[in-house]
Amino acid sequence: MEYRIEKDTMGDVKVPADKYWGAQTERSRNNFKIGPEASMPLEVVYGFAYLKKAAAHTNHALGVLSVEKRDLISKVCDEILEGKHDDQFPLVIWQTGSGTQSNMNVNEVVANRAHVIAGHKLGEGKTEVHPNDDVNKSQSSNDTYPTGMHIAAYKMIVETTIPGVEMLRDTLQAKSKEFMKVVKIGRTHLMDATPLTLGQEFSGYVSQLNHGLKALKNTLEHLSELALGGTAVGTGINTPEGYSELVAQKIAEFTGHPFVTAENKFEALAAHDALVETHGALKQMAVSLNKIANDIRMLASGPRSGIGEIIIPSNEPGSSIMPGKVNPTQCEAMTMVCAQVMGNDVAVSVGGAQGHYELNVFKPMMAYNVLQSARLIGDACVSFTENCAVGIEPNYNSIQQHLNNSLMLVTALNTKIGYEKAAKIAKTAHENGTTLKQEAVNLGYLTAEEFDEWVRPEDMIGSLKS
Amino acid sequence: MEYRIEKDTMGDVKVPADKYWGAQTERSRNNFKIGPEASMPLEVVYGFAYLKKAAAHTNHALGVLSVEKRDLISKVCDEILEGKHDDQFPLVIWQTGSGTQSNMNVNEVVANRAHVIAGHKLGEGKTEVHPNDDVNKSQSSNDTYPTGMHIAAYKMIVETTIPGVEMLRDTLQAKSKEFMKVVKIGRTHLMDATPLTLGQEFSGYVSQLNHGLKALKNTLEHLSELALGGTAVGTGINTPEGYSELVAQKIAEFTGHPFVTAENKFEALAAHDALVETHGALKQMAVSLNKIANDIRMLASGPRSGIGEIIIPSNEPGSSIMPGKVNPTQCEAMTMVCAQVMGNDVAVSVGGAQGHYELNVFKPMMAYNVLQSARLIGDACVSFTENCAVGIEPNYNSIQQHLNNSLMLVTALNTKIGYEKAAKIAKTAHENGTTLKQEAVNLGYLTAEEFDEWVRPEDMIGSLKS
Amino acid sequence: MEYRIEKDTMGDVKVPADKYWGAQTERSRNNFKIGPEASMPLEVVYGFAYLKKAAAHTNHALGVLSVEKRDLISKVCDEILEGKHDDQFPLVIWQTGSGTQSNMNVNEVVANRAHVIAGHKLGEGKTEVHPNDDVNKSQSSNDTYPTGMHIAAYKMIVETTIPGVEMLRDTLQAKSKEFMKVVKIGRTHLMDATPLTLGQEFSGYVSQLNHGLKALKNTLEHLSELALGGTAVGTGINTPEGYSELVAQKIAEFTGHPFVTAENKFEALAAHDALVETHGALKQMAVSLNKIANDIRMLASGPRSGIGEIIIPSNEPGSSIMPGKVNPTQCEAMTMVCAQVMGNDVAVSVGGAQGHYELNVFKPMMAYNVLQSARLIGDACVSFTENCAVGIEPNYNSIQQHLNNSLMLVTALNTKIGYEKAAKIAKTAHENGTTLKQEAVNLGYLTAEEFDEWVRPEDMIGSLKS
Amino acid sequence: MEYRIEKDTMGDVKVPADKYWGAQTERSRNNFKIGPEASMPLEVVYGFAYLKKAAAHTNHALGVLSVEKRDLISKVCDEILEGKHDDQFPLVIWQTGSGTQSNMNVNEVVANRAHVIAGHKLGEGKTEVHPNDDVNKSQSSNDTYPTGMHIAAYKMIVETTIPGVEMLRDTLQAKSKEFMKVVKIGRTHLMDATPLTLGQEFSGYVSQLNHGLKALKNTLEHLSELALGGTAVGTGINTPEGYSELVAQKIAEFTGHPFVTAENKFEALAAHDALVETHGALKQMAVSLNKIANDIRMLASGPRSGIGEIIIPSNEPGSSIMPGKVNPTQCEAMTMVCAQVMGNDVAVSVGGAQGHYELNVFKPMMAYNVLQSARLIGDACVSFTENCAVGIEPNYNSIQQHLNNSLMLVTALNTKIGYEKAAKIAKTAHENGTTLKQEAVNLGYLTAEEFDEWVRPEDMIGSLKS
Repeated sequence: MEYRIEKDTMGDVKVPADKYWGAQTERSRNNFKIGPEASMPLEVVYGFAYLKKAAAHTNHALGVLSVEKRDLISKVCDEILEGKHDDQFPLVIWQTGSGTQSNMNVNEVVANRAHVIAGHKLGEGKTEVHPNDDVNKSQSSNDTYPTGMHIAAYKMIVETTIPGVEMLRDTLQAKSKEFMKVVKIGRTHLMDATPLTLGQEFSGYVSQLNHGLKALKNTLEHLSELALGGTAVGTGINTPEGYSELVAQKIAEFTGHPFVTAENKFEALAAHDALVETHGALKQMAVSLNKIANDIRMLASGPRSGIGEIIIPSNEPGSSIMPGKVNPTQCEAMTMVCAQVMGNDVAVSVGGAQGHYELNVFKPMMAYNVLQSARLIGDACVSFTENCAVGIEPNYNSIQQHLNNSLMLVTALNTKIGYEKAAKIAKTAHENGTTLKQEAVNLGYLTAEEFDEWVRPEDMIGSLKS
Repeated sequence: MEYRIEKDTMGDVKVPADKYWGAQTERSRNNFKIGPEASMPLEVVYGFAYLKKAAAHTNHALGVLSVEKRDLISKVCDEILEGKHDDQFPLVIWQTGSGTQSNMNVNEVVANRAHVIAGHKLGEGKTEVHPNDDVNKSQSSNDTYPTGMHIAAYKMIVETTIPGVEMLRDTLQAKSKEFMKVVKIGRTHLMDATPLTLGQEFSGYVSQLNHGLKALKNTLEHLSELALGGTAVGTGINTPEGYSELVAQKIAEFTGHPFVTAENKFEALAAHDALVETHGALKQMAVSLNKIANDIRMLASGPRSGIGEIIIPSNEPGSSIMPGKVNPTQCEAMTMVCAQVMGNDVAVSVGGAQGHYELNVFKPMMAYNVLQSARLIGDACVSFTENCAVGIEPNYNSIQQHLNNSLMLVTALNTKIGYEKAAKIAKTAHENGTTLKQEAVNLGYLTAEEFDEWVRPEDMIGSLKS
Repeated sequence: MEYRIEKDTMGDVKVPADKYWGAQTERSRNNFKIGPEASMPLEVVYGFAYLKKAAAHTNHALGVLSVEKRDLISKVCDEILEGKHDDQFPLVIWQTGSGTQSNMNVNEVVANRAHVIAGHKLGEGKTEVHPNDDVNKSQSSNDTYPTGMHIAAYKMIVETTIPGVEMLRDTLQAKSKEFMKVVKIGRTHLMDATPLTLGQEFSGYVSQLNHGLKALKNTLEHLSELALGGTAVGTGINTPEGYSELVAQKIAEFTGHPFVTAENKFEALAAHDALVETHGALKQMAVSLNKIANDIRMLASGPRSGIGEIIIPSNEPGSSIMPGKVNPTQCEAMTMVCAQVMGNDVAVSVGGAQGHYELNVFKPMMAYNVLQSARLIGDACVSFTENCAVGIEPNYNSIQQHLNNSLMLVTALNTKIGYEKAAKIAKTAHENGTTLKQEAVNLGYLTAEEFDEWVRPEDMIGSLKS
Repeated sequence: MEYRIEKDTMGDVKVPADKYWGAQTERSRNNFKIGPEASMPLEVVYGFAYLKKAAAHTNHALGVLSVEKRDLISKVCDEILEGKHDDQFPLVIWQTGSGTQSNMNVNEVVANRAHVIAGHKLGEGKTEVHPNDDVNKSQSSNDTYPTGMHIAAYKMIVETTIPGVEMLRDTLQAKSKEFMKVVKIGRTHLMDATPLTLGQEFSGYVSQLNHGLKALKNTLEHLSELALGGTAVGTGINTPEGYSELVAQKIAEFTGHPFVTAENKFEALAAHDALVETHGALKQMAVSLNKIANDIRMLASGPRSGIGEIIIPSNEPGSSIMPGKVNPTQCEAMTMVCAQVMGNDVAVSVGGAQGHYELNVFKPMMAYNVLQSARLIGDACVSFTENCAVGIEPNYNSIQQHLNNSLMLVTALNTKIGYEKAAKIAKTAHENGTTLKQEAVNLGYLTAEEFDEWVRPEDMIGSLKS
């Protein structure tokens, strides 16, 4: 590999000749060989691109950056956002806890790429825009990284997580409506209980997701607060008057999301409770999704020796010789995602709890976990919807058989023949392995016709909403 | 011990002669000897008392319970709420996961106590109100326990947690205002950084708690939804028309809190995401409080060989021979509480994720953890406020000394003598272990007077809000 | 209430007249009103009693404590261990993180009780043995509390947890042997799979518990290391020569457990990885028990509309009208315990990770969680064994029906009639909802006799070990 | 992109023309678009390569596979292990929970690559070795995936984690020895306490890591047990006599690690407590490393306004203008890793706790977390050692200054001038902000010479071991 020499305050560093990054990025590559390369999420890099562009515009508007520099910086940021420089960000999550080196990575790439755009050769001469003095102007790692991660997390939640969950919610809602009159046995403690409809059962899932979406959206306000303008310790040293508000406005404009400047910059650097809050809502969603996916795979179990009350789509060969062995693979992917999110929540909390004085130094790890959870939930909901939920159908045979066999239906007879006789019927049927109807008639308590008239599961399910 | 014989559908059971509980409670005592007796939180029992009274009133209003029975049931519930029967609830958390046996415990105590109030002797004759047919009328364990736990959790959050956190927030707010002009060194990465004021530092804590309070209050709406009226599986079987809404109204009236009937009863029995959501906010609060308490103990460390920038009250002998060894014991209690809450959050999530079909059977465990966390946070905030926060004072000597010694102040000279000379001053002072002022003058870059005029930490702290 | 006045270096304190505790305990009661009173586990108090007695003996043996004082101290410690003073330890977990105040609570109770034993009146005159100079001689809170908690945890693990798990393991082992030839359908992905025996299924549970017991026992060596002798910071300042080794020997002798002095006292005060390690093994046990209890409740589900392949004992009324609704209440208690232990594990880890310099100050919280988890697992295993596991019986009807109906048995025909014909049989049976045998004969591929001879689930289960 | 058509039992699938994978892999790619592509760890793929090769050898040795097929399969497996086909495994973690599709991915790649090696054209004609009948012979996804993940995890622990931790342990051990006589102030509750040496302080870290290594090694035995031979449900259906033992032997031979066949295959498929156990030890290591890294950054804090008792290497520009601002970046990377591992532990436990009947379907997620944690800890320890630990030096000035200033040294005077006078000296020095020596002389209790002779921190540190 060919190299060029880059310099920083500590001296010379050999950098791959064709890369835009500079000395500090290269030092970080060498000093933090922890896990696979380039693990720092690209979403955070894009967050940086938005904020660097916004800072350039703001610095220009406030009279501290030339229009030429503003435009050069903006142009590179746009290129980054178009995905043209994804291979220029080789750093790992497990670096300086403030994400300083990823900030410098962006600064260096912007400066060097701008240099080339301006017609110069990479590595030759002083760059047109200086990575620190221009690209990083009115900024510090300490306020840029949390800004970048808020942008990244907000976008992921709003653009991936919420749409994914809503897609699943809508599909389950439609299924709930469709199945609203399919009466089936209820189960409590995993044991047979009084009946409800399959649509009612699914309405519980919809309600869970609706509550979860509301909880998740509740967290967006905190997440929309940006640290930018706090600079090194939150006091905003080295920023021009009006900078914080304007730069947040610019970011809102460029991203199309309602970002605002954080009211308190000391919190915004020293604590990342906003991420803790958002991830808490993601974790709640995981809890809900785990319940739903688990129910669905149990309801679909069988084909002969399980519950088998619903049929799920067959997406891949389950068992070549055994028809009907449709493994609930989407449920399995979903519940694995849920377990991961539950774990990630602890990582985020542990990091969030350990800030010191003016700076929390678990930023990249927290950002990584929030982004992973947010994406996995969004993606898994889409996958689950398309490959499972849309195709769920009742298995009417099983549903009817379970319902007819159930001893719980005897409760309908209490008001007709009294509690004791009803219980006697159930007890006898249980002992003999027969049906309620058989024993009711055998015991001479009522006729078969009366049984059919009085024991109607569809009258035991309350009022239906759909 | 003397016993009387109580019966249930399984036969006779010996019950302590002087206790109001009956056969099913006693069976549970014998079948679940797990951990210390009576671990089921009394707050849940009180939640049951509210709901049993509300159910009696509703059943009467809807024509299915006599006024005499209503009044007898109400009277016992009131006694329970006055704490007169705290020793009548011996069951443990680790019982049936629906809390069925605690529901029966309440039913039995109400029935037997009512019997005595009505002038009969405990254990003699048929009780005036029947534990199942009257006290439990229009109810099921499956909807009463979640109702009781929501009432208990809501009350604890609103009456203990929030006031406790607000007390601490107010105190820290006052301190922030008081210390707003106390300029001190900032620290990032635990290393010396540019200055800020002690008040600014504390304002970050206030902002954390304000965000946390908002997040916690956001969860109350979900928590205010009550399962009552869903009965066995959510369909509301065996409840009179209009029951759900009215009973929630009564509970709201009796408790003084804005409880409503859950829109979806299937969710309300089968999932407890409301508890997951509320506990998520408690966990966020723990994360914030951990940061704050940790900062305060580090700032108070010393007295000679630590940071020592604040002085905290001395509440107990730290070291008999060493004056000034004021151990940050309130910080330690607080951070232990925070760790516990972070653990409890996982327990709540794990339980919440594992509901099956129509019923989640981790109810008592989830309730226990939410109540423990909510109480510990509330209590710890009060304790921390009264025994630590209110007495925090700046240690002006240390603050001044650290500020004066700091090399970071050199940044103020950049605009006066240029970056390079400023850096030279800092480098020399660092090597020689001297002050910036000494070296600035020694190097001949500026006079002592100029130094004092130009290097003013109070000009490096941005604008102050208080 | 009547009070007497006690003094410490900070002045006078009013103490309940009839209590043995002194000024420092009372201060702690007032300063830490967090959660219910007396939450500090008594097991830790007993651990202190062992160590105070051992220290008195060691101090005497090494010539620094009179025989009279040794005997007085020992006598009170014995009384404490007999449970005679359980109401003398009112402090909470959420106190000084070193447990200092609980150490002083023990010192004060021992001194004051000894004073009374020696014939004096409580609160009158100077105590015969001094709480600090005698009872706490050669000790510091910093080494006593971790010693007390190690003793408590070790005893709980060895006396409660392991016996409980072994009882369950033995019962499941016996069941496994008993059921070794009960052929049943296997289930993977919750879907029907090739057969195995019920005994084989249970053997997996036994193997899990055996591995878990081994893992738990592996942690005992670390837990047997005692901090005592490290005193304030681990250097052992103020201890006589040979103290550490001898006092550990005495503790081993008094408790009957193989305690040793920690090789490195700096670790023993500053980190509690031994508790983290032990709790990690408890958490692993919880993971295993959750799997087992969950399987058992699913296997027992029904009675009509579930899996229903085993029958579990009916311990309490499930549903008065519905015979056979035997709720798996022991499984529910067990899985709630498992969730709690999984949460506690995080609390222990979070506390363990945050020690500072020479002292970890999350000791009481860590001890509390380890003790709770250890006891809950032990108790829950006993409860589960006695009230569920011993009574598990196969439901031969269901097992046979599921097995006969299963389409997976067709795999046995591959070698007889070829894969394609076998698959055709299964496919046809699946579509028609018929049995393999019916379709095999209908399709003319083989006779009913051949089917019975060739399709023998008992030949598909490998070799049996029991 | 060009495609070829591949078939499976469900029909035709378009597969990228130049890839070795087949229909089932491609279906999985399309059905599980969750998170970034190819997230399934390559280590698991390599684990598969070992086991496929071992199975081929075993199948041949037991007479059920030809030597030609054995050699073809082996050759491809060797190529995979040489990293020649890393781009042939595009599947994600979030797939079927048994990892079935990754098993098929390997089977397909081996079959198609073998076809090419045998001189045929990819996609043309029937492959020489059949993916199911030959490559997967005597195997099932249900036993191969757990085998592959055990191989992967074992190798990672033994080849990366343990060497990394041992490297750090050795370095800290050397530092402990080197610093064994550097007397410094101790700190408990973050407050000044009696002295110890820097070497003693570091010896605590060494002891933590030694205990952690022992705990980690204790888990290897469980991890060395392989599921292979259990096939579909643990009974070993479709395996030749003697297969399990021989295939484990072959794996041991090929990997050079002491793998054995699992004694109980039902556990080996249905539960992954071995991963839970191993990850528990990784989490314990994270707890230890967090304590150590945290201590080191606090000890290195400053340069002027912190503790500053050690100097850590400066690896990257901290602050361009502020010399001595050496951010503890390696500590930050390390503590972020620790937080991640603590989170991963919950994910592993949650997955481990939820197996159903004969199969745990959280396998890929569990494997991923164990591998991530194991690698991060190993890598972070190496990075921390090379870039921080090896360069740690005492800051003798600060150490001496803190020691001299400390009021705790007064305890040394107790035996010379009595407790009361000693306390008076300390109290006066504290109030006046002076040194003990000054006040001791001022108060006339002793001479400066006596002070120097009697107050010798080096006599307060116990006996030294190094």
